[in-house]
Amino acid sequence: MKVSIIGATGYTGAELIRLLTQHPQVEVEIITSNSFVGKKISDIYPNLTGIIDMKCKELNVEEIAEKTEVAFTALPHGVSMDIVPQLVERGLKVIDLSGDYRYQDLDTYQAWYKEHSSPELLAKGTYGLAEYNSLKIKDSSLVANPGCYPTASLLALMPLVENSLVEKEGIIVDAKSGTTGAGRKLSRGTHFSETEGNFKAYKVANHRHRSEIEEKLSLAQTDDVQLTFTPHLLPAKRGILATIYADLACDKSTEELIHYYHEFYDGANFVRILDNKLPQLKYVVGSNYCDIGVKVDQERNQVIIISAIDNLIKGSAGQAIQNLNLMAGWDETPGLKQIGMYL
Amino acid sequence: MKVSIIGATGYTGAELIRLLTQHPQVEVEIITSNSFVGKKISDIYPNLTGIIDMKCKELNVEEIAEKTEVAFTALPHGVSMDIVPQLVERGLKVIDLSGDYRYQDLDTYQAWYKEHSSPELLAKGTYGLAEYNSLKIKDSSLVANPGCYPTASLLALMPLVENSLVEKEGIIVDAKSGTTGAGRKLSRGTHFSETEGNFKAYKVANHRHRSEIEEKLSLAQTDDVQLTFTPHLLPAKRGILATIYADLACDKSTEELIHYYHEFYDGANFVRILDNKLPQLKYVVGSNYCDIGVKVDQERNQVIIISAIDNLIKGSAGQAIQNLNLMAGWDETPGLKQIGMYL
Amino acid sequence: MKVSIIGATGYTGAELIRLLTQHPQVEVEIITSNSFVGKKISDIYPNLTGIIDMKCKELNVEEIAEKTEVAFTALPHGVSMDIVPQLVERGLKVIDLSGDYRYQDLDTYQAWYKEHSSPELLAKGTYGLAEYNSLKIKDSSLVANPGCYPTASLLALMPLVENSLVEKEGIIVDAKSGTTGAGRKLSRGTHFSETEGNFKAYKVANHRHRSEIEEKLSLAQTDDVQLTFTPHLLPAKRGILATIYADLACDKSTEELIHYYHEFYDGANFVRILDNKLPQLKYVVGSNYCDIGVKVDQERNQVIIISAIDNLIKGSAGQAIQNLNLMAGWDETPGLKQIGMYL
Amino acid sequence: MKVSIIGATGYTGAELIRLLTQHPQVEVEIITSNSFVGKKISDIYPNLTGIIDMKCKELNVEEIAEKTEVAFTALPHGVSMDIVPQLVERGLKVIDLSGDYRYQDLDTYQAWYKEHSSPELLAKGTYGLAEYNSLKIKDSSLVANPGCYPTASLLALMPLVENSLVEKEGIIVDAKSGTTGAGRKLSRGTHFSETEGNFKAYKVANHRHRSEIEEKLSLAQTDDVQLTFTPHLLPAKRGILATIYADLACDKSTEELIHYYHEFYDGANFVRILDNKLPQLKYVVGSNYCDIGVKVDQERNQVIIISAIDNLIKGSAGQAIQNLNLMAGWDETPGLKQIGMYL
Repeated sequence: MKVSIIGATGYTGAELIRLLTQHPQVEVEIITSNSFVGKKISDIYPNLTGIIDMKCKELNVEEIAEKTEVAFTALPHGVSMDIVPQLVERGLKVIDLSGDYRYQDLDTYQAWYKEHSSPELLAKGTYGLAEYNSLKIKDSSLVANPGCYPTASLLALMPLVENSLVEKEGIIVDAKSGTTGAGRKLSRGTHFSETEGNFKAYKVANHRHRSEIEEKLSLAQTDDVQLTFTPHLLPAKRGILATIYADLACDKSTEELIHYYHEFYDGANFVRILDNKLPQLKYVVGSNYCDIGVKVDQERNQVIIISAIDNLIKGSAGQAIQNLNLMAGWDETPGLKQIGMYL
Repeated sequence: MKVSIIGATGYTGAELIRLLTQHPQVEVEIITSNSFVGKKISDIYPNLTGIIDMKCKELNVEEIAEKTEVAFTALPHGVSMDIVPQLVERGLKVIDLSGDYRYQDLDTYQAWYKEHSSPELLAKGTYGLAEYNSLKIKDSSLVANPGCYPTASLLALMPLVENSLVEKEGIIVDAKSGTTGAGRKLSRGTHFSETEGNFKAYKVANHRHRSEIEEKLSLAQTDDVQLTFTPHLLPAKRGILATIYADLACDKSTEELIHYYHEFYDGANFVRILDNKLPQLKYVVGSNYCDIGVKVDQERNQVIIISAIDNLIKGSAGQAIQNLNLMAGWDETPGLKQIGMYL
Repeated sequence: MKVSIIGATGYTGAELIRLLTQHPQVEVEIITSNSFVGKKISDIYPNLTGIIDMKCKELNVEEIAEKTEVAFTALPHGVSMDIVPQLVERGLKVIDLSGDYRYQDLDTYQAWYKEHSSPELLAKGTYGLAEYNSLKIKDSSLVANPGCYPTASLLALMPLVENSLVEKEGIIVDAKSGTTGAGRKLSRGTHFSETEGNFKAYKVANHRHRSEIEEKLSLAQTDDVQLTFTPHLLPAKRGILATIYADLACDKSTEELIHYYHEFYDGANFVRILDNKLPQLKYVVGSNYCDIGVKVDQERNQVIIISAIDNLIKGSAGQAIQNLNLMAGWDETPGLKQIGMYL
Repeated sequence: MKVSIIGATGYTGAELIRLLTQHPQVEVEIITSNSFVGKKISDIYPNLTGIIDMKCKELNVEEIAEKTEVAFTALPHGVSMDIVPQLVERGLKVIDLSGDYRYQDLDTYQAWYKEHSSPELLAKGTYGLAEYNSLKIKDSSLVANPGCYPTASLLALMPLVENSLVEKEGIIVDAKSGTTGAGRKLSRGTHFSETEGNFKAYKVANHRHRSEIEEKLSLAQTDDVQLTFTPHLLPAKRGILATIYADLACDKSTEELIHYYHEFYDGANFVRILDNKLPQLKYVVGSNYCDIGVKVDQERNQVIIISAIDNLIKGSAGQAIQNLNLMAGWDETPGLKQIGMYL
């Protein structure tokens, strides 16, 4: 299957290229870039030298529609929505990695992002949380790939929320991310000299991923779920670890809750429920896994859930490929068999 | 003033030496070590070469009592309690950096640590949270230096708890520490190859510092305060940043709460309330400051407090020197004027 | 093909498992460990959870000979030589990752390592520098996998030395390695708190890899080559970058020398000669590539060669698999198609 | 003594402020900045909060001349030379931290930097390598603070070159620097996501610091000294470690050479000759020390010298303060008593 990657030189685009190059059924046919037209991708990411030396093209919707079946749009929020409709219109399947088609509710999107230029597509877009939404994804021609923090948060919370095992208020997601989550763009906050050895919270009580998590949990619970979301920046490149606190709506032990998770994720290829240990970034970085650990504090009637993903893989490019596999009717795993690096 | 450092070769002991060498009124007279008797401290910590080349001695309580006025005990928990009584008995002022004299309640200590061999001294020990307890510290001859996590947590919570501004249940302390908190002892979890780029929670719902924080808050509140405490290990050497969640018991804005903090810490030398930004490790690492930032989420009736310290300075050796200064009747600041490194 | 890994729980063994699990023609049948008999490999390296949950066995040469065709010995230097003869004797093909069979000259081995218990096998062992020795490797039943520093150094120097383009005296290899080169064993020098932000040279003028490099260059040059070798420890997990200085024996430009390299490595799968940039660790870490860059300083009649590898892959487990592929008569690349991580 | 810092918001300027704030005889009176006029320095570097909250001013030479005695110019190369003459003219003592007044030879400067706008001041400027040039510095009103790499290189080489103990050709300086050497300016090469875990050489055979080192060594040797200089970028914030190779012009042992070093640096406050170990970054980072270790390889008739400094302190702001102390006729050490952090 021939695919194109629109916005190929950002970190998400580059990770798509790296992973798709190893996908047995996919050929990357066109890569586009605003800033690097005519430049070889392997000159921008020399790890690709000799493996994929393709040149970046200007965006040409016609050519993309003619030569490729699926387009990955790895564009900034607010830019995607101007391109995606043109692709969908021409019959391409689209996997959009921005926030532009993740919401069901237009107002929420517009409150946290900006005015939407193609709101009619919101209803058409399928939220691409692969483990939760696989049936819909298979039939969809526009998949909105979830945010990185929402992926780690929702995979951890869905089994409890759907089964009404936790109170729908007072959930706290204290999340910590590596710097690649902030992308390729240079900024003071990700300048090595100011980031190594540092740690900070940011956008406290004010990060838009909260609204994405809340919408999806509320839909699952069929009631409003309200949560507190605090992102932090780790002095590390890759990975998100979320420490999640929720009040139990039931009297369950750690073992009982873990049982619910095993059931919920029965047969899932990329979620691992850890029984006797807790997730660490090094278990998942480099892979498409989401690891989940659970601990009940019965004295406080509280459950603490810890989930970990590689933000660029399960939290972005990997999950996008998982969605491609589902949309193509393939097994879920080709192109995604990399094992976590650990070291 | 001549002082001795018992257990000088651990990270806390070494940091005491580094800081005290720059203290204008103090002379380090005796340093002891179990493992390095006869070895120059500057051979173990070559940053000290040419500055302090003193040799480590075996512990000799008589000599210490004879030649020095104050002893810092930088020993493992459970070891301190066998040495401290001998020092106190001989009239030395003691600043103990272990957990052995931090608790008022013997049972709590014994539940989280081990059987206490000198419980009669618990009542005599003053909890050395310098900003909170300075009057008692001045008159004390045995000061129990607070734990690193408790220091960051208590300084952040005390103004709210003492003023009953937050609910006494449901407080969550999600804390992240650098690796020096785990000390000099080699371990798998702090082996560079397994720690760089990694991040994990540990001792979830099971870390003894929770009991220390709870006891001190409960005494301040004159009622039981119950909290959830989750420590995490950062891929960084120094620093603790705690993200703390509490339900408001009142209807206050961010500005109003910040006002309470300013009042509470009026005149404090080493607590900085940040008005228009949030703490980051790089603001405090290398210094004795505790930085505190506050944000109210009125929609959720919740306050998020963020505090940051250098775990080896404000969380340990620096606070011990602050206590020494208080006990000696000096100004609080000599030996502690280092400014955070930032870079 | 069924293989066994003897010494599976060290970093080299674990990397072999990680890579071989993705090898389409290989099945890991037996893994042995001294310290973890009966323990699941995925409990030691939880990145492997759900992928390979095989248990570590005690070493049983008979069982290995019966059930597997090839054995990787990932044992400490000096331990391998007691096991390898038993395997060879029973008709197994062996790829030994220790230093025990790398030398042609027994005295050199014994000068830098220890007394050899199976010196008769030295002649039988083939030095597994895959790009240089592939014909011999194909026919060999005992391949001595090169050291990590020698791999980076020899691949960089061979084209110049074999073609007598550089003086055979005065070569300097200033090499910098990540911490995984020091292995899984805990040590002060790789304790995170003492390694992050640090950098040091070690074993200056006294590292045994010098003798390995010198022997192989001398054999290629058919004359004694003498070099200076200085290893350094980087605050990074993976990768070796060697900066190599040699006096030119000819009057050649950068472009001319690069031409020699391209010729020398014509058709090589895992050596990349960079034409217009210099190697960086992030180009190769995670892959089996050795990247090489060259710069002539004509004023000083000197060539500076920079080579970079992932020490655990091209410098160890990856090259071992490359050797397996050669020995098995396969294409050189299966199991080794991972692309460098870059991020 | 009242001083001004021109260009106070770059890393060098910020480090000057941090250090001078702790200098007992100095008051920072004016700080200027191009980009942050009117902004508090503690809003840019919040580690300074509550310690020095002074605002950045626009550059006003008259005011500086009126209110301060000494000016530190921490400006980019090529910018300094337009400001310094105005300061000198008005009778200020100037310590310039750029490259603009480091050279005796105008052509060399112009070959590596740009056309010089105040070449007449080159002769007036004193090269501020404090240990080597202290007498001249004391009497100078314009001191050119050495580059960071030259400081580490020259302190290591001077004792050997001045005593003609090494050959004047073939010296190789293989230097490794932390990222703060690249300054505050954002760049791809110091973006955290691309720098953590990475390592690279840069400006191979083409870095201008080589010319600075060569000029100073040639003046000392009264003959042309030619060297090879290769800088590398470490995944660490602070510190330079240089590994230096030189051919011996004599038959000396390690101990004999160390003796020369001790003699040469007899009484030096900030150079430490390590007798039985080699320098590491963690011994010096945070301090004004230059540590030097020496090892002779008699077989190769070669000496390997390793030197380490904190690039922002001894390699920049610290040495500038050392120069201030000399110029002011004070002891060399006030403001510079910080001990290396080690951790």
